[in-house]
Amino acid sequence: MAHLLGGIEAGGTKFVCAVGDENGNIQKRVKFPTTTPEETMKEVFAFFDQYEVEAIGIGSFGPIDINPESPTYGYVTDTPKLPWKNYNFLGAMKARYDIAYEWTTDVNVAAYGEYKKGAGVGKDNVLYATVGTGIGVGYISHGELYRGRSHPEGGHILMQREAGDDFAGVCPYHGACLEGLAAGPAVERRAGKKGDQLLSTDSVWETEAFYLAQACMTYTLTFSPDVIIFGGGVMKQKQLFPMIRENFLELMHDYVRVPDLDNYIVHVELGDDAGITGSLLAAADVLTK
Amino acid sequence: MAHLLGGIEAGGTKFVCAVGDENGNIQKRVKFPTTTPEETMKEVFAFFDQYEVEAIGIGSFGPIDINPESPTYGYVTDTPKLPWKNYNFLGAMKARYDIAYEWTTDVNVAAYGEYKKGAGVGKDNVLYATVGTGIGVGYISHGELYRGRSHPEGGHILMQREAGDDFAGVCPYHGACLEGLAAGPAVERRAGKKGDQLLSTDSVWETEAFYLAQACMTYTLTFSPDVIIFGGGVMKQKQLFPMIRENFLELMHDYVRVPDLDNYIVHVELGDDAGITGSLLAAADVLTK
Ligand SMILES: Nc1ncnc2c1ncn2[C@@H]1O[C@H](COP(=O)(O)OP(=O)(O)O)[C@@H](O)[C@H]1O
Ligand SMILES: Nc1ncnc2c1ncn2[C@@H]1O[C@H](COP(=O)(O)OP(=O)(O)O)[C@@H](O)[C@H]1O
Ligand SMILES: [Zn+2]
Ligand SMILES: [Zn+2]
Repeated sequence: MAHLLGGIEAGGTKFVCAVGDENGNIQKRVKFPTTTPEETMKEVFAFFDQYEVEAIGIGSFGPIDINPESPTYGYVTDTPKLPWKNYNFLGAMKARYDIAYEWTTDVNVAAYGEYKKGAGVGKDNVLYATVGTGIGVGYISHGELYRGRSHPEGGHILMQREAGDDFAGVCPYHGACLEGLAAGPAVERRAGKKGDQLLSTDSVWETEAFYLAQACMTYTLTFSPDVIIFGGGVMKQKQLFPMIRENFLELMHDYVRVPDLDNYIVHVELGDDAGITGSLLAAADVLTK
Repeated sequence: MAHLLGGIEAGGTKFVCAVGDENGNIQKRVKFPTTTPEETMKEVFAFFDQYEVEAIGIGSFGPIDINPESPTYGYVTDTPKLPWKNYNFLGAMKARYDIAYEWTTDVNVAAYGEYKKGAGVGKDNVLYATVGTGIGVGYISHGELYRGRSHPEGGHILMQREAGDDFAGVCPYHGACLEGLAAGPAVERRAGKKGDQLLSTDSVWETEAFYLAQACMTYTLTFSPDVIIFGGGVMKQKQLFPMIRENFLELMHDYVRVPDLDNYIVHVELGDDAGITGSLLAAADVLTK
């Protein structure tokens, strides 16, 4: 029997809301910019008021509180987007629609979408990293949305410097963490132009590949995934993939066995639909669990 | 009913074999140095030939192959201890004793021991790191020995340099990875003396605390554990703990919420017994699963 399900991909830049089925097929969708909770939630409600969905999967920018025993469960917590700081996102949704919810990160739903329908099909452990305005990491562990005490924030790990690189980094929290050194705004600051205006042969991509390869190394040595899937605006620079693989090989120095790199470090297959597709699929799961 | 169980903590320096019960109580144990597989396994067999154990938990140094579908499942794979490279450890055990086995890393069994009977009691997600001749990381995720495609090798992550530190690092694979910068041999090389001969106020401990705090940051941002437990010879320097906590706070810059640090970054409680205790407890589990 077909269920009508809802999905919200709540990114720091824009929201996507959709309704669809349990196979992640999107029937209707809307997009709007992320402004204040007041304005943005008005649009969310305007969309979902039109449908009778049985469950909603929410993938939110964060950090968010995903611990059901915490008094601030369902909140966006320490985000630099100040109007959202300590906002009870899940609470607001529940107050409007008394249905079942999945509550996780935007990158976790994208990881889940790729796991079920994209570059992660057939793998158990799928790491997804988006390299856009920020760097976010989602992880599927043995087919489940990974959570420890909280969710991964693997975009903010600190990095060994590339020889000769003294760029200070732009992360407001950590300066030269991965996001501070390699997200879109860092590329722009290093090169003096937005990423999409640079030649594919610009030397900034060598630096970019070095840091992204190092991130792959850290994820390999911690999570040990079956595949590392990259999405986000910066990864539209396809020339990065062979460069990352090459740097990864050199950095790892054969320390642990990894799959054939062409199948290990790969581009997202669902493109910009990974997150919203994963939200619908995650909503489907809460009905059956 | 009491079961007689076996445990092997196979470290790169020494082996510990024990028999005990399903609560991890050790009834008899032996220790001997890790030399060649031929010599070392002779001692292992001499010990276990004396008992009728129902299952054995093996925690081995590595990297090891823990993928049951792999043709080299049960092997030690790419270790720098050359006589053990590509040695079929589990296969040799099974050929001698046709019983049930748990096959995991030495640090995973130590993590499991601490989870069940030590500093991890009452927590779901327990990260254990030993800082000794090398740095090894074990992880218990929701009460289970963590595995992805393979096991964590979190001692070899690359690090942001402490300002002014230009020590080349001693890891034969990566030079200045965490192990190369902060394991016992790195301390000795930096300070010109073994760690146990240094004053607790030696400035080398400040550098040590910086890198171990940074490792805690990476583990927090990836696995997101409930507790980080440190063991191994170097961590006998108890003054390191407050220093690591202080550095951790500074590095994280309040980005994600963590527990009270006195209960988050802690010393192993079972001391040198963590690994062998965890081996017995893991052996008990294979009988009930
Ligand atoms: N083709 C491209 N090449 C390189 N960088 C790009 C490209 N397209 C977008 N970017 C950069 O990616 C960032 C936006 O990332 P994106 O994933 O599109 O959105 P967001 O992360 O905000 O959801 C910006 O910094 C932008 O400059
Ligand atoms: N009290 C101590 N203080 C500092 N370092 C120590 C101390 N005891 C041992 N070490 C160092 O720890 C390393 C040995 O680690 P250990 O955990 O005992 O064994 P292993 O890692 O070989 O199993 C050596 O480099 C040694 O110098
Ligand atoms: Zn950061
Ligand atoms: Zn190393």
